[in-house]
Amino acid sequence: MNYRMIGNILGWLMIFESLFLAVPTLTAAICLESTFFVFAGTALFCLAAGLLITRKKPPNITLYSREGFIIVALSWIVLSLFGAVPYFLSGTIPSFIDAVFESVSGFSTTGATIINDVEILPKSILIWRSFTHWVGGMGVLVFIMAFLPLSGGQNMHIMKAESPGPSVGKLVPHVRTTALLLYSMYLALTLAEFIVLLIGGMDPFEAFNTAIATAGTGGFGIKNSSMGGYPAHIQIIVTVFMLLFAINFNSYFFLGRFKFKEAFTTEVIVFLLTVALSSTVIALNIHSIYQDWGDSFRHSTFTVATIMSTTGFSTEDFNMWPELSRALIVMLMFVGGCAGSTCGGIKISRFLILFKGLKKELDVLIHPKQVKKIKLDGHTVEHDVVRSVNVYMVCYVLVFAVSMLILSFDNLDLITNFTAVASAVNNVGPGLELVGPSSNFSIFSDPTKIILIFDMLAGRLELFPILLLFSPNTWKK
Amino acid sequence: MNYRMIGNILGWLMIFESLFLAVPTLTAAICLESTFFVFAGTALFCLAAGLLITRKKPPNITLYSREGFIIVALSWIVLSLFGAVPYFLSGTIPSFIDAVFESVSGFSTTGATIINDVEILPKSILIWRSFTHWVGGMGVLVFIMAFLPLSGGQNMHIMKAESPGPSVGKLVPHVRTTALLLYSMYLALTLAEFIVLLIGGMDPFEAFNTAIATAGTGGFGIKNSSMGGYPAHIQIIVTVFMLLFAINFNSYFFLGRFKFKEAFTTEVIVFLLTVALSSTVIALNIHSIYQDWGDSFRHSTFTVATIMSTTGFSTEDFNMWPELSRALIVMLMFVGGCAGSTCGGIKISRFLILFKGLKKELDVLIHPKQVKKIKLDGHTVEHDVVRSVNVYMVCYVLVFAVSMLILSFDNLDLITNFTAVASAVNNVGPGLELVGPSSNFSIFSDPTKIILIFDMLAGRLELFPILLLFSPNTWKK
Repeated sequence: MNYRMIGNILGWLMIFESLFLAVPTLTAAICLESTFFVFAGTALFCLAAGLLITRKKPPNITLYSREGFIIVALSWIVLSLFGAVPYFLSGTIPSFIDAVFESVSGFSTTGATIINDVEILPKSILIWRSFTHWVGGMGVLVFIMAFLPLSGGQNMHIMKAESPGPSVGKLVPHVRTTALLLYSMYLALTLAEFIVLLIGGMDPFEAFNTAIATAGTGGFGIKNSSMGGYPAHIQIIVTVFMLLFAINFNSYFFLGRFKFKEAFTTEVIVFLLTVALSSTVIALNIHSIYQDWGDSFRHSTFTVATIMSTTGFSTEDFNMWPELSRALIVMLMFVGGCAGSTCGGIKISRFLILFKGLKKELDVLIHPKQVKKIKLDGHTVEHDVVRSVNVYMVCYVLVFAVSMLILSFDNLDLITNFTAVASAVNNVGPGLELVGPSSNFSIFSDPTKIILIFDMLAGRLELFPILLLFSPNTWKK
Repeated sequence: MNYRMIGNILGWLMIFESLFLAVPTLTAAICLESTFFVFAGTALFCLAAGLLITRKKPPNITLYSREGFIIVALSWIVLSLFGAVPYFLSGTIPSFIDAVFESVSGFSTTGATIINDVEILPKSILIWRSFTHWVGGMGVLVFIMAFLPLSGGQNMHIMKAESPGPSVGKLVPHVRTTALLLYSMYLALTLAEFIVLLIGGMDPFEAFNTAIATAGTGGFGIKNSSMGGYPAHIQIIVTVFMLLFAINFNSYFFLGRFKFKEAFTTEVIVFLLTVALSSTVIALNIHSIYQDWGDSFRHSTFTVATIMSTTGFSTEDFNMWPELSRALIVMLMFVGGCAGSTCGGIKISRFLILFKGLKKELDVLIHPKQVKKIKLDGHTVEHDVVRSVNVYMVCYVLVFAVSMLILSFDNLDLITNFTAVASAVNNVGPGLELVGPSSNFSIFSDPTKIILIFDMLAGRLELFPILLLFSPNTWKK
């Protein structure tokens, strides 16, 4: 294990975190908020520590697959811990575990909060909450790699471990250029949403917060009613952008080159069809409540978009909707969006691979001598990818079951526990019953919050990095 | 597709069904119940139809894997349909869908009932309900194969499709002898329970019903309070036998030959440890209710045994227990017992293979060049078996999700729907909330009952035969 290289990258991470902290520091300075000192202090500490650690170059910069996972897991833990410091030191969140929960919920783009009233928070704190979504959405290590001079083979291991989806393709031959391209598209789309929201009538602070929280598919709101208090056209704008951020960013790359066939992959088409179908079913189901087809469709589409993109904003309390809608919403939590987007969840492409694998195996049962390959968009899905998707699912069920069991010690109802875990692992935000859109996660005990912190991180990093961190085999020579 | 051979075996099935129907016919004759004519009539009809169909021998008796699955799926559907006739014609169950539900619940050894008051039923009806468990437990085609002269290669396809567990081993070289051996052990264990229950003070009718319903891990009771009204020692006897019937029958074969190492496989040991651990956790959790350690442990062990063996008897209404116990019970529904027993559920051996596969894959992530095999009890688990377990899980989740969604149209709560499907697919019997131990399945609408009928059959046959029946590829030339 190349400990010095791991340390070096963690050092760089702290330097970058100090840069991220500049955003709320600046906000506090402009708004003359007392949180300025907390943000500036944390930023300076991170900067100093980072510079100290990265001062000496490691003699050997080789990284293997194993180090890639460790770096990703540790980076996200360090990032979240220092990200929690301002919440705690500013007194916004008096319990440190709660502060870490809020920070992990931010970076993992979950958006589940333990704060009862967000409208009384300083603007710098609100900006920091939303900004953690933006950083976590595309990935902090992808960001570092866009700027840090690492050789290709090294950072591919890191990129593989951090990026969502069953397989990671490079857009261009160089990992660094791929990372830069991804962040450019991300920035451009975020800016587009910001501008459209401004035109739509939001003030710049609201528009900025909403844009970065949507971009990361996070879901921390700056109003207690989330998006419920905004006019219909703003809700529609946010719906459209939530869907845009749930689509594989590769598609935008190909669209920019007018390669429409490559842009509209099976995954993107299935995603859009699922959105359309689910929104229609829910709209029909809730029509009896809203009496107006426009309202029904607006709320159903917003909810489907927020759940499938795993953002977690809300316009209405879908916990009060009929059982069919509730059941569908719970299922969509698990589906998530496309691979290569900023979403959580299991992702459409994994389901496509699973279903194609199922169909193939059923065929083999009937015709045992047939040899078939699984194909997606004309490409053969490698056996390794299929196996890794299967193992991911086993892992997923295991993490889910253990979490559920520990949560039930709190003696809250099964639906609350089930949807709280589903919401955490899939990085959605709200669940049902006691963790529904109109409630928050402050009801849980500290041990439960720790489990949910684990679930959010494990979910964002797609399980393997966090699980490997706790596997004794990882640390063997 | 060898349609004539499929028809021939279905003919034999009807002949055997008429033999099974002799049991309630005889009961009705002895007790002078008016149901005699219904049972005798159905039996005679099955016999006549069976003899007519099997009169001509098919010119070609070759069966391939495909025909094996089709035969198993169709046999169970025919068996259940004719098994429902006496319920319907006797007026016991006025709706035909309800009658089919009861019949499928019987043969699939689920034990979920739609009858509100079982204590007013004629004895012949009660015996038929319990006897369907006994027939369904070990498998009706295994039974036929023990008596029908089919060549080895032919019936192996059928045995594979009907037997529970990820892989089917033959105890002795001949399939027919294996089938006979399995049924002999099954009969011996059932007789043992019958005798012990008689000694314990049950009357012969109660003891016979209880013994055959336990043997098939079914769970239809002859009292509205299931096992709740019986003295503690009877409950303990039933607990022990539920556990015995949840263990791989191969173990008894090896025990009989004093091969202890082969008898106590990893699966059996993990099963027994899970029972011990879960019973202890639940006993600690429910101690505040019962105040007495003896009662707490008796109820917790009975419940763990009834849920893991997927029998479905109950002594107490575990729906009223604290959330930790409820969550654990729901999880154990999915676990089930050992492969090669009469249980439903996913089964311990599948979980062992999944976990070993997970561990292996995590190791491969760290050391990509390592080549490892999955071993269980010293034997390599073939790649085919691992793949088929993975595909089974995908299938399982798919069936589960679609069922849940259709059930939610009834607008009952999520826990009722979730546990109703879990109970049906895993062939358990009771669930939680509206389908808890003190309730029954009569609350559901007809479309929901049809879905649950499908789930019970699919669960008993471990998904593939029933799914293949509906796959267009199966019927292609």
